[in-house]
Amino acid sequence: MSLEQMMKQHPEATQVDLETLVECIERSSACEAACVSCADACLSEAAYNSSLTASEADLCGVTVRLLSRHSSREPRVLHDALLACIVGCIACAEECQRHADHHEHCAVCAEECRRCAQSCEDLRALLPRDSNFT
Amino acid sequence: MSLEQMMKQHPEATQVDLETLVECIERSSACEAACVSCADACLSEAAYNSSLTASEADLCGVTVRLLSRHSSREPRVLHDALLACIVGCIACAEECQRHADHHEHCAVCAEECRRCAQSCEDLRALLPRDSNFT
Amino acid sequence: MSLEQMMKQHPEATQVDLETLVECIERSSACEAACVSCADACLSEAAYNSSLTASEADLCGVTVRLLSRHSSREPRVLHDALLACIVGCIACAEECQRHADHHEHCAVCAEECRRCAQSCEDLRALLPRDSNFT
Amino acid sequence: MSLEQMMKQHPEATQVDLETLVECIERSSACEAACVSCADACLSEAAYNSSLTASEADLCGVTVRLLSRHSSREPRVLHDALLACIVGCIACAEECQRHADHHEHCAVCAEECRRCAQSCEDLRALLPRDSNFT
Repeated sequence: MSLEQMMKQHPEATQVDLETLVECIERSSACEAACVSCADACLSEAAYNSSLTASEADLCGVTVRLLSRHSSREPRVLHDALLACIVGCIACAEECQRHADHHEHCAVCAEECRRCAQSCEDLRALLPRDSNFT
Repeated sequence: MSLEQMMKQHPEATQVDLETLVECIERSSACEAACVSCADACLSEAAYNSSLTASEADLCGVTVRLLSRHSSREPRVLHDALLACIVGCIACAEECQRHADHHEHCAVCAEECRRCAQSCEDLRALLPRDSNFT
Repeated sequence: MSLEQMMKQHPEATQVDLETLVECIERSSACEAACVSCADACLSEAAYNSSLTASEADLCGVTVRLLSRHSSREPRVLHDALLACIVGCIACAEECQRHADHHEHCAVCAEECRRCAQSCEDLRALLPRDSNFT
Repeated sequence: MSLEQMMKQHPEATQVDLETLVECIERSSACEAACVSCADACLSEAAYNSSLTASEADLCGVTVRLLSRHSSREPRVLHDALLACIVGCIACAEECQRHADHHEHCAVCAEECRRCAQSCEDLRALLPRDSNFT
């Protein structure tokens, strides 16, 4: 897969497992698109307030960008950015799940959010803790 | 695939072929991550100025978002946003291709940009032209 | 003002009037926040479909980033990105104006969009046309 | 100022001081543009690795969007997103400060990052803690 291939060529070796990293980038990308699409569908239906879903799309977007940058030299920044994404994913999944029976797109979005949260947690567990940073 | 599944559930039918739309979203997502990663690698190597690659990442990101929104009610906006993304992809592919022999990540990025440009062109050709808009 | 101060220090001189450039960045930033806020308010009121406003926020966001990069070496990319932003601004201003009597936030958003469109047009008129690009 | 005016019209009252909120949005917007511009200038000079600055631009961007959404119904998400932005701002300010003597744009960027971090902390202190969320 091309992103993994590209990252292998990066002059600075990542300190984390590359497969887990790429998996997390792909999950976050998929979750961003799902959240944008679900928020838009909810808007058309005036179904419920999709403000949280729109925000989760933004959080996933920033996750994709930070992770695509290998900037693991600042693991504290990644740790906290991943935490924000995970917390947003969980909140969004809970909200969407409530509407999953009536809106198939909410069911899909909830599932994407749960998978993204899991993937971010898997990666976060692998990150070195920067002890110089409080 | 879940994004396609989700879009089928959107209350407003898209006016374009769904498979082409989802393909374009996925290509743009992949291209955004590739451009962020390539720009970052170039930066580490002080290889060449990757300003254009960083901008193309941003243009791909906005393409993902606009397309995930079904906002085909304003085809003129999509037309012009896709054009900006295509022009950026072509310029970025040309720039990266120049470095492809020495930097594998530039070769991968150039290839992603070309595929993204093609996918955006395929979709753009399907969009209705809004005649009320000049 | 600090952004102007910073841009004067950039190693590569911009080819455009710096004041117009910074004005456009600031207008686009203000318009992005206004569009996100207006789209969110409309959502709470289930007032009307704010999908276009949400997309215009994204287009403004990418304008801020591209312009903050001095990447005027590729004026064609800037030309087309500014055009997409302008077209989106005009469409969004028209849509919001329709609701301006009943929703003050739509009146504010329409005004921000018009000012952003004007500012982008002013800047676009100053950009060199890249004749090597078709 | 128009954003404050707009937010006063939002159907759901914010639970935080509006002036602090708008100040934080404006600081984050200014910091995003400063970081994009500084990262780009560093790139031109091959001065130092501006990967962290580029990431901080992304974190500021998402802060602008989340805050512009009044989504204070999920204070936990805002808490954690603001924390990620603050941590990134501090790390970026430290990195830029190291180059401030030789690069005026790094001095400006460091200052913007410090002001943004302060503004985010001021706002974060005002947010209600969501006790239902762990």
